[in-house]
Amino acid sequence: MSGGSEVEHLIELMAKLPGLGPVSARRAVLSMIRKKSLLMAPLAKAMAEVEATVRECNICGNITTHQFCDICRNPKRDQSTLCVLESVADLWAMERGASFKGRYFVLGGVLSALDGITPESLRIPMLIEQVVGGGVSEVILALNATMDGQTTAHYIAEQLSDSAVALTSLAQGVPIGGELNYLDDGTIAAALNARKVF
Amino acid sequence: MSGGSEVEHLIELMAKLPGLGPVSARRAVLSMIRKKSLLMAPLAKAMAEVEATVRECNICGNITTHQFCDICRNPKRDQSTLCVLESVADLWAMERGASFKGRYFVLGGVLSALDGITPESLRIPMLIEQVVGGGVSEVILALNATMDGQTTAHYIAEQLSDSAVALTSLAQGVPIGGELNYLDDGTIAAALNARKVF
Repeated sequence: MSGGSEVEHLIELMAKLPGLGPVSARRAVLSMIRKKSLLMAPLAKAMAEVEATVRECNICGNITTHQFCDICRNPKRDQSTLCVLESVADLWAMERGASFKGRYFVLGGVLSALDGITPESLRIPMLIEQVVGGGVSEVILALNATMDGQTTAHYIAEQLSDSAVALTSLAQGVPIGGELNYLDDGTIAAALNARKVF
Repeated sequence: MSGGSEVEHLIELMAKLPGLGPVSARRAVLSMIRKKSLLMAPLAKAMAEVEATVRECNICGNITTHQFCDICRNPKRDQSTLCVLESVADLWAMERGASFKGRYFVLGGVLSALDGITPESLRIPMLIEQVVGGGVSEVILALNATMDGQTTAHYIAEQLSDSAVALTSLAQGVPIGGELNYLDDGTIAAALNARKVF
């Protein structure tokens, strides 16, 4: 390979991004070099800018370039409904759905005995404090339907069992556009148990 | 989506890289934000550095951070053999092969009547000048085996027909590890025509 060690260093760094390997990183870097002023310069600038300004929202854990994120600062969002999520990626997915009008709380992970992730290493104490502090009437536990996600949901439910808030979770069933043929047995059983009048 | 317009702007730019779409760009940006000091800061720095320093080698058209690239500055490379390539990506592929010890010449594209690409918009006049200037005894036309690549090879061969240099091209045949079953008819015919004693 050639082009100077700077180029090679950039390729190595790009290859660390998820979804990119050494070959696609090389392709991306060559494409950037070809479009230096159109793509590479703005990308370097945007990256440095985000790196310098991005932080965790003090309230919900979403990423933001301010002290509080756009959602927490939005007075139109329902302050009484709090949706608890595992990650910022999940928050973005919920926002794309555009049907939830409440606020979020991002845990930043799920409990995992194997990985040594305790409630304190997540943002669970902050969540409990926020809910107990008042103003919240419903907490939606929208954690992923994995073993660790469900363990975390149960732990939070236990912690909040003394408070008056309603605890809910997302419905389980057949995804829109899903075909029974391709669904796992657990999903089909859950959808059957939760069947409703046609 | 949220996280501020800076983050969205970065995602949009990342999605312009080849091999990345909106979904994988989002994933890459989230991963960068999670590894701010380990990945995002070095990446922004490396990108700005390459953007500021990278340029075309004055001799061969390879990318470099100096006036001349590592290969052109290397006195151990055979000065009399010149390998003509379509792109820097092709040059890197040849270098990974590590069996060519001569110098390169990158055209920066191939002739295309449809796209209005003439010899002058490529680096063909510089190539002719360099070869006619002397010191080169063999020109390997290693252009891609596409219609435009072969047209370009023929054009260069015609331009150099009066000079004393030997013109060669890469052998065509079955790739190492290739299965006949998956090869196109043209490749099989070429391999058969160029068959050699076992």
